[in-house]
Amino acid sequence: AAAAGLTVAEVTGSNVVSVAEDELMRILILVRNFLPGHHQVISGEWNVAGVAYRAYDLEGKTVGTVGCGRIGKLLLQRLKPFNCNLLYHDRVKMDPQLEKETGAKFEEDLDTMLPKCDIVVVNTPLTEKTRGMFDKDRIAKMKKGVLIVNNARGAIMDTQAVVDACSSGHIAGYSGDVWNPQPAPKDHPWRYMPNQAMTPHVSGTTIDAQLRYAAGVKDMLDRYFKGEDFPVQNYIVKAGELAPQYR
Amino acid sequence: AAAAGLTVAEVTGSNVVSVAEDELMRILILVRNFLPGHHQVISGEWNVAGVAYRAYDLEGKTVGTVGCGRIGKLLLQRLKPFNCNLLYHDRVKMDPQLEKETGAKFEEDLDTMLPKCDIVVVNTPLTEKTRGMFDKDRIAKMKKGVLIVNNARGAIMDTQAVVDACSSGHIAGYSGDVWNPQPAPKDHPWRYMPNQAMTPHVSGTTIDAQLRYAAGVKDMLDRYFKGEDFPVQNYIVKAGELAPQYR
Repeated sequence: AAAAGLTVAEVTGSNVVSVAEDELMRILILVRNFLPGHHQVISGEWNVAGVAYRAYDLEGKTVGTVGCGRIGKLLLQRLKPFNCNLLYHDRVKMDPQLEKETGAKFEEDLDTMLPKCDIVVVNTPLTEKTRGMFDKDRIAKMKKGVLIVNNARGAIMDTQAVVDACSSGHIAGYSGDVWNPQPAPKDHPWRYMPNQAMTPHVSGTTIDAQLRYAAGVKDMLDRYFKGEDFPVQNYIVKAGELAPQYR
Repeated sequence: AAAAGLTVAEVTGSNVVSVAEDELMRILILVRNFLPGHHQVISGEWNVAGVAYRAYDLEGKTVGTVGCGRIGKLLLQRLKPFNCNLLYHDRVKMDPQLEKETGAKFEEDLDTMLPKCDIVVVNTPLTEKTRGMFDKDRIAKMKKGVLIVNNARGAIMDTQAVVDACSSGHIAGYSGDVWNPQPAPKDHPWRYMPNQAMTPHVSGTTIDAQLRYAAGVKDMLDRYFKGEDFPVQNYIVKAGELAPQYR
């Protein structure tokens, strides 16, 4: 689009709250071992010990976000009252005020942060640097029993390495709604691996998010027909020039 | 025990954080329509619209807690960053400082609060006043599409009224881990009703809570063998005298 001199714009940020809420849900589903208990209910069983032996409180655990843009920050704010040890890795430190508010500590080096984490949340875009970032070697260096939440992009993980680590128990739980490829084929191994709490790619598509998309599109159409500019943060390409965050 | 002049004590408050975390998980599971998406995954399907048409953000919704003791207060603190409209009903108003911190508004009359709520969380003990509190008539006065979380006691609900309202859609989702009776028999209708996210009674039995029980019991045994009193809040009956909160 840039080469062709076009303009591309989006209703930016319209579903970041939706995704952050969904990440916190997934953290709790894994930490509390929700699904095995629910499966007991629907299959006529009652075995509290069979759930509780691997159910934990979130309180006191170390949670690290890999990438801390808009979604990561909203997640940290929502995690704050759970009294966790919060860590974040990003290219840049966040605003000191927000760091103080959330109590999250900056980790410059990813491989120094990961072994400290009981729970890792992936909030980084898919780029050539992050593709396959969680491969066999990196997963092996994480804590045994780590829980992983990934609503970012499926290809940030090495698919088979996740399957193997969930099967061995090195990863104690994996939840997300992103897959490689999408839609996930019927035989995608993440459908069948143990201790997964996966969904199809829905975290950013709540009715509330859809209302925001719709209102934002209408606003941009109104501006377009009046010959006005869009809000600056909405541009991906403006008349052939790529927005700064994509350069 | 009181009539027999005995002492009964518990490790009080040892699982209130565990239960409050679990309640927030259940709110999100219902609001986000998690389970239908997960069932798609395990049955080889991919249908985003089939989940999203009834998935919402928690942000902006009205959440009311019926009863606001230790667990209710911990829940409100954890809900605070989600930018909801928070309401609570109890016999007494909470500490003004905590009211300010959570932004929760006191509702003196239960039946005035309930129709305002998108989500109702039950945090009241089972007493002769609360047994069957949520019967057909009371549920009918709640919002169509209300979500209910109940980790308190199963008998606070009229079992069949909940089944009927989940079937009609008046209750859009019901999640909890308490049943009447417990263990729930194989044919308990809550196992089979639509839009349920039930588990066996596990919310207060995390490994972390078990560690607190164990340490608290050891502490009380140590005190007992030294002839010392227990922490005052641990007594249910002390030498035949019922503790004030149970009178």
